[in-house]
Amino acid sequence: MKERILEHVFHPKTVAVIGASDHDGFSQALMSTRMRDSLFLVNPKYSELHGRTCYSSILDIEDDVEYVVIAVPAPNVPGVLSDCIAKGVKTAHVFTAGFSETGLPERRALEEEVGKIAEGRINLIGPNCMGVHCPGSGLTFIPDASTEPGPVGVVSQSGTFAEQFLSVGQLRNVQFSKVISYGNAIDLDCPDLLEYLATDPETEVIALYIEGTRNGERLKAAMNQAARLKPVVALKGGVTVQGGRAASSHTGSLAGSAQVWNSLFRQTGVVQVDNFEELLDATLALSCARLPAGKGTAIITNSGGFSVLETDLCVKAGLEVPPFTDETIAALRKMVPLAGTSISNPLDAWPIYYNLPGKSGTLADAIRILSHDTNIHSIVLHFDEVAYLRRILGDAVEDLLKELIPVMVEGCEYARDTMGRAVTVCVSLDAYSEDEEDRRYHMMAKKAFEAERFPVYPALSASIKALYNLYRYSTRYGAL
Amino acid sequence: MKERILEHVFHPKTVAVIGASDHDGFSQALMSTRMRDSLFLVNPKYSELHGRTCYSSILDIEDDVEYVVIAVPAPNVPGVLSDCIAKGVKTAHVFTAGFSETGLPERRALEEEVGKIAEGRINLIGPNCMGVHCPGSGLTFIPDASTEPGPVGVVSQSGTFAEQFLSVGQLRNVQFSKVISYGNAIDLDCPDLLEYLATDPETEVIALYIEGTRNGERLKAAMNQAARLKPVVALKGGVTVQGGRAASSHTGSLAGSAQVWNSLFRQTGVVQVDNFEELLDATLALSCARLPAGKGTAIITNSGGFSVLETDLCVKAGLEVPPFTDETIAALRKMVPLAGTSISNPLDAWPIYYNLPGKSGTLADAIRILSHDTNIHSIVLHFDEVAYLRRILGDAVEDLLKELIPVMVEGCEYARDTMGRAVTVCVSLDAYSEDEEDRRYHMMAKKAFEAERFPVYPALSASIKALYNLYRYSTRYGAL
Repeated sequence: MKERILEHVFHPKTVAVIGASDHDGFSQALMSTRMRDSLFLVNPKYSELHGRTCYSSILDIEDDVEYVVIAVPAPNVPGVLSDCIAKGVKTAHVFTAGFSETGLPERRALEEEVGKIAEGRINLIGPNCMGVHCPGSGLTFIPDASTEPGPVGVVSQSGTFAEQFLSVGQLRNVQFSKVISYGNAIDLDCPDLLEYLATDPETEVIALYIEGTRNGERLKAAMNQAARLKPVVALKGGVTVQGGRAASSHTGSLAGSAQVWNSLFRQTGVVQVDNFEELLDATLALSCARLPAGKGTAIITNSGGFSVLETDLCVKAGLEVPPFTDETIAALRKMVPLAGTSISNPLDAWPIYYNLPGKSGTLADAIRILSHDTNIHSIVLHFDEVAYLRRILGDAVEDLLKELIPVMVEGCEYARDTMGRAVTVCVSLDAYSEDEEDRRYHMMAKKAFEAERFPVYPALSASIKALYNLYRYSTRYGAL
Repeated sequence: MKERILEHVFHPKTVAVIGASDHDGFSQALMSTRMRDSLFLVNPKYSELHGRTCYSSILDIEDDVEYVVIAVPAPNVPGVLSDCIAKGVKTAHVFTAGFSETGLPERRALEEEVGKIAEGRINLIGPNCMGVHCPGSGLTFIPDASTEPGPVGVVSQSGTFAEQFLSVGQLRNVQFSKVISYGNAIDLDCPDLLEYLATDPETEVIALYIEGTRNGERLKAAMNQAARLKPVVALKGGVTVQGGRAASSHTGSLAGSAQVWNSLFRQTGVVQVDNFEELLDATLALSCARLPAGKGTAIITNSGGFSVLETDLCVKAGLEVPPFTDETIAALRKMVPLAGTSISNPLDAWPIYYNLPGKSGTLADAIRILSHDTNIHSIVLHFDEVAYLRRILGDAVEDLLKELIPVMVEGCEYARDTMGRAVTVCVSLDAYSEDEEDRRYHMMAKKAFEAERFPVYPALSASIKALYNLYRYSTRYGAL
């Protein structure tokens, strides 16, 4: 029953922003999607806004309004919400903050009042949250968000977390089915949203950011159900005592002990991660990579020093970097020159990075050989050749890269599609690099891998941790 | 005695590259510095190279040559080295790889032969390494390296590690005194280099990447001496068993057990870190930040969700996020509006990020208040307002940032310079962001903080971990 109500939440026919202004993000966001033609703006201060009629009250709108965004001062929320109910609105997203999360008794009472008004009369999201992003319907809270639907559903108790996950996710080729920031959760709460995404055919992977819950049993049941149907990756905010105190100031949540949450995630088969980046990185990997059939990881790199550090990173993360079989080593030895290389796992075989198709021993050939090795279940490919190639080739590097990058992608496709190996790619790039050419060349490589649905990461540690989280997920229920 | 020899290594009057070619990085690198006027190129294949005379042999050069870079195939190294000794060269850097690190007995014998030729006759760096970068003399191995000297000395067993540390370090405002990649270390080894940097007046902080050693006792003594004179931060490559196997393929090192190395670092007061990024981040902080007088950290942010996660990151790292005193809270409450904020530690006070000078309650005012709090020894400032401000202001954001950024910097200067607090800054920026305007605004903030010598990081976790490493260093010998 609740599921059908939620379907409705994500696909309203008409939307109103109450408290619209010339700089509010919701109006701007909704005017940038197909929702623009079904959008009403409400604010008694304006008669016109963004070149369209602005209504004094929702009651003045003649059409039916199915969904509202409420962005008025907290003390005005009860009145506005009552108007919405009178108007027959089905879902209200209360963006407004300043309720129980302030810790003030009068604000807690205000929140309770809002809850009582809504109860049984309207679906309420929030207060103190960003609401819903759904590329399929055009409902959104970010003006520049992609309108391309994808497999990742996100449930976030925090609004800025949801915004950031969406913004950075888009840079990393994560594509979203639905993103919901649910805040103080007077009515629609995390379990409702998990239950919905669990059976939502558009959602293949669920990412969850949660600070606390009022109903542990319902949450556990919802996690259990969701995690049996699709991968669920979760980050618990406020997992330390001091972080828990911060969570209570933020969403008014009781954070609970780390042990309770750890065992909740473990018991329900939810993959728990440690921070924002790891949640994003694992979600990306689970949305596109194959699952590894074991811990054995092959590392392909162009640097001796980093080959050592990558091996340490793998082993510390919980993976293994086993020796190649004798057959693999014999086959590689035919291709790779001796000096400055290491024909073992990690494979530090920098000269073959530069072999073009037609030459014997391209990187694709090496990856093909590796992917037959029975000790190997996953491959991490590290691409960081740009600086070196530019020094040697200058501007001619662009033409070389146009030939070399497809060779690397081809090798990875063989490993994944023919041999069933999990593959992650690191295209090293520093956040603060200002060298435009350098960025352009790296982005060429990144996008070529993404076009064939490989998960690409700017940092080695991320590409390895993502692989480990694929492995963790694959062993959840002895599955594969 | 050895120290005086090393001074000589870093400041040669003349340099030759043996095995120069039209694309070798060493010639290009040295021609880009003041060393260009004291540089000779040697290769029997050319009579002219890069528009200058190319000599068949070092013996053909009439001038004295003090330092050579040897980049010829491994089997030719003994002959070339003998020529260098005959010529009276004082230091030879052998770039060439293909010696003991191959694991082949004949290559190990070749390395021993090279060592015997050099012994007592010439200072030898390498083989299998990048050699020396010294902005003060112009000796370098990277064409685009900064020639601005700074306080950071680096000793790296790996060549690509040294290159990467130098390249990424420059993007992060790390400035270098000397960077040495020493490879297989036939002659000049890690302890020699540590001893030199320990008493080098140009070097204030030492970063070390090491995979193994042949002489643990000498290394321990050198670490002990260096760490008593200045901060030493170290990353051990091959700290896992499989990583140790990779290290042995890389530099022919015996990696030793993790426990042995952990206790070596602990006993000598060297701050051990876990990965490349942490080494760079800690080095940056130690090269410019104040040391904190305790664990108490104030977090200033614009996001509730991230305030919770930052608190967790701090506590997991080993810091504390204590409540502010009643005086601090009372003073902040006068400035910060209630809704959507949290007037506690972490301080989620987004509205004051936008208060310009003249208005009461700027971010500088808030930082001033915090920095008087007796529970607070350090401050992490998180700047991530650009997307929000652009949505509201469009292009006008640039003018606003020009006023807002100096306010933030001013607050941080007060905390550091007047109140003695440790300060790190996170200017959030994703490696793969392609939005040029967004990058430009973030870089404005980054550079403004760097101009006043604050350590700036693109990721929250890095800004917090760096603070923790400052704290760790401050407690090494019960100092402070």
